[in-house]
Amino acid sequence: KSTYRITLLPGDGIGPEISAATVRALEAAGSKFDIAFDISEGLIGGAAIDATGSPWPDETLESCRGADSILLAAIGGPKWDANPRELRPESGLLAMRRDLGLFANLRPAKAVPQLLDASSLKREVIEGVDLMVVRELTGDVYFGEPKGTRREEGTTVAFNNMIYSEPEIERIARVAFDVARQRGKKVCSIDKANVLDVSQLWRDVVTRVRDDEATDIELSHMYVDNAAMQLVRWPKQFDTIVCGNLFGDILSDEASMLVGSLGMLPSASLGDPANPGVFEPIHGSAPDIAGQDIANPLAMILSAAMMCRYDLKHPALADALEAAVEKVLDSGLRTKDIIDPDDPDFSLVGCDEMGRAVAGAL
Amino acid sequence: KSTYRITLLPGDGIGPEISAATVRALEAAGSKFDIAFDISEGLIGGAAIDATGSPWPDETLESCRGADSILLAAIGGPKWDANPRELRPESGLLAMRRDLGLFANLRPAKAVPQLLDASSLKREVIEGVDLMVVRELTGDVYFGEPKGTRREEGTTVAFNNMIYSEPEIERIARVAFDVARQRGKKVCSIDKANVLDVSQLWRDVVTRVRDDEATDIELSHMYVDNAAMQLVRWPKQFDTIVCGNLFGDILSDEASMLVGSLGMLPSASLGDPANPGVFEPIHGSAPDIAGQDIANPLAMILSAAMMCRYDLKHPALADALEAAVEKVLDSGLRTKDIIDPDDPDFSLVGCDEMGRAVAGAL
Ligand SMILES: CC(C)[C@H](C(=O)O)[C@@H](O)C(=O)O
Ligand SMILES: CC(C)[C@H](C(=O)O)[C@@H](O)C(=O)O
Repeated sequence: KSTYRITLLPGDGIGPEISAATVRALEAAGSKFDIAFDISEGLIGGAAIDATGSPWPDETLESCRGADSILLAAIGGPKWDANPRELRPESGLLAMRRDLGLFANLRPAKAVPQLLDASSLKREVIEGVDLMVVRELTGDVYFGEPKGTRREEGTTVAFNNMIYSEPEIERIARVAFDVARQRGKKVCSIDKANVLDVSQLWRDVVTRVRDDEATDIELSHMYVDNAAMQLVRWPKQFDTIVCGNLFGDILSDEASMLVGSLGMLPSASLGDPANPGVFEPIHGSAPDIAGQDIANPLAMILSAAMMCRYDLKHPALADALEAAVEKVLDSGLRTKDIIDPDDPDFSLVGCDEMGRAVAGAL
Repeated sequence: KSTYRITLLPGDGIGPEISAATVRALEAAGSKFDIAFDISEGLIGGAAIDATGSPWPDETLESCRGADSILLAAIGGPKWDANPRELRPESGLLAMRRDLGLFANLRPAKAVPQLLDASSLKREVIEGVDLMVVRELTGDVYFGEPKGTRREEGTTVAFNNMIYSEPEIERIARVAFDVARQRGKKVCSIDKANVLDVSQLWRDVVTRVRDDEATDIELSHMYVDNAAMQLVRWPKQFDTIVCGNLFGDILSDEASMLVGSLGMLPSASLGDPANPGVFEPIHGSAPDIAGQDIANPLAMILSAAMMCRYDLKHPALADALEAAVEKVLDSGLRTKDIIDPDDPDFSLVGCDEMGRAVAGAL
């Protein structure tokens, strides 16, 4: 019987509820394959600020470093919004990415057949959408120096440096080509090379890596403004999209909303393959519904499936979890966010019951 | 009889065709009100590169400075894409904005009742959408210094400075509040203040201008990634959106695509009220269909209407042009980009005929 060490970061808002449901489903899947999970909880975000004064305590970093993989629920809430930036939950997230070297964020946006009608886009535009945004996660204007605020000619100016180095671009390009190789073998790289020097380097390096190392992949380039349009117009044109941290933040969220089921979408943040990755739902901590047992745990359960596939290298475990989610959806169970109240074929369940249902389907 | 001096910049691709159709419509509208237009053509973009070696020749700048207003069609094309950045058509556009001090770009995204089905979004999501993106146009990472490329520890890094000063933010905030006052009195300001210093200054200054000068306006703030989602989810929640140059580039294009009629959307770029503004369709130069008389001139005709309203201060002229476009659409005339080939109620017309029809409807 093998055991995986998981650090679980429940975070804020609905985080603890969906974590509990996810652990239940994960353990049920594990027992099918004679696998045990040794789960330690760590503090991050608002919960960590309240308990320790820091959104990213050293003990959490240590626990993560010692783990095979990391499951994160969600962070943030109005309680901490007025704090100075370094004492906000988001800063914990950014510090985590930096300290764990998580330079690659994989954000699938896949239409869920059972939930097509939840999209604001027409069915024929959404049906069959299956794209992956590969977002660089530790560089760009998020971390660039110099940055700050200064007085200049009697007024204040504030600035951040949008910066990339060749090696940073090379490694994320390689991830994108590897991902595309498992998918449709097409990468569309996003930039603003008609205006920005940093984008011109991005485009040059991505092109070179393709020509040197990935000639089996079809590479195209698109300006970020056009990409924001094309995602709305015809998302099926995309297979794998690679972008810098800021453009990836915007476009991956836009792509998620297209498919209309935010409560269903997982993500993976990866670095050096020898280190643990972080797997988390893309939705937020939804403080307005926290503690009411109405949150949807499926995105976090699907994040656990991604963890099994990418970090634990146990595709059968991942498949089992994904199949269980599918089965539960087919059986008509729906949490509040994905139910169609006019359709009598569905039954409304809470977060806990949804977790039990997935565990039961395993 | 009053005369307005207009500098017309036909640019590249379909630019000359839609310019001809627009001039025809504008002159027809003028003659209704006993107004004459003294129109001088200027070179910009690829056409200017070919003729003078510069995408923004001095003569064009002089002509613009002497005009009451400026009408621009579209620039760019594959012919110049491999040029170094300063010899690309886009650089002419950026230089124009800088030299004419056009710091405010107004980008309406309004659902056209006759064209609702062209959107990839569901009818109920799009019907009634009427929002305005106010984009800052002469600052941000587009123009920030320092920028460039350098060698560092044996590798290349490239960077651009995302920077705003207080006065730059103040003046665009004022434009947004003025615009909102003519509309729904609601402004949503977009930033990434949870990560960027420059966004924190943006948020602080926009808030202060609101509190000092525009207490009749309801101001909210939204992170750019969330805005990219909310535009897809429920665009009707927005009235006026204000953002920096880069976020505005992305979100205004996304918003345009939502309403599904790119060929119908105008824009205005304004600076000091004493100086001429630039009015242009938001679509590109469409080199693939240039010279075939199939382009849609309506967005440029509606840009001319915006010009009459904002620069020539002649709202009746603007209303007349807009009403004529409406009438022509109601009569069933459609250019190729907006026709529904399965609907027998429409008749396909070319660019020239569409221009004549609008002129005739006046
Ligand atoms: C909370 C914020 C700092 C974060 C980001 O911008 O990276 C979030 O939007 C995300 O995409 O994970
Ligand atoms: C062509 C390009 C430089 C320009 C911009 O990014 O401003 C265009 O996308 C626009 O929005 O007018």
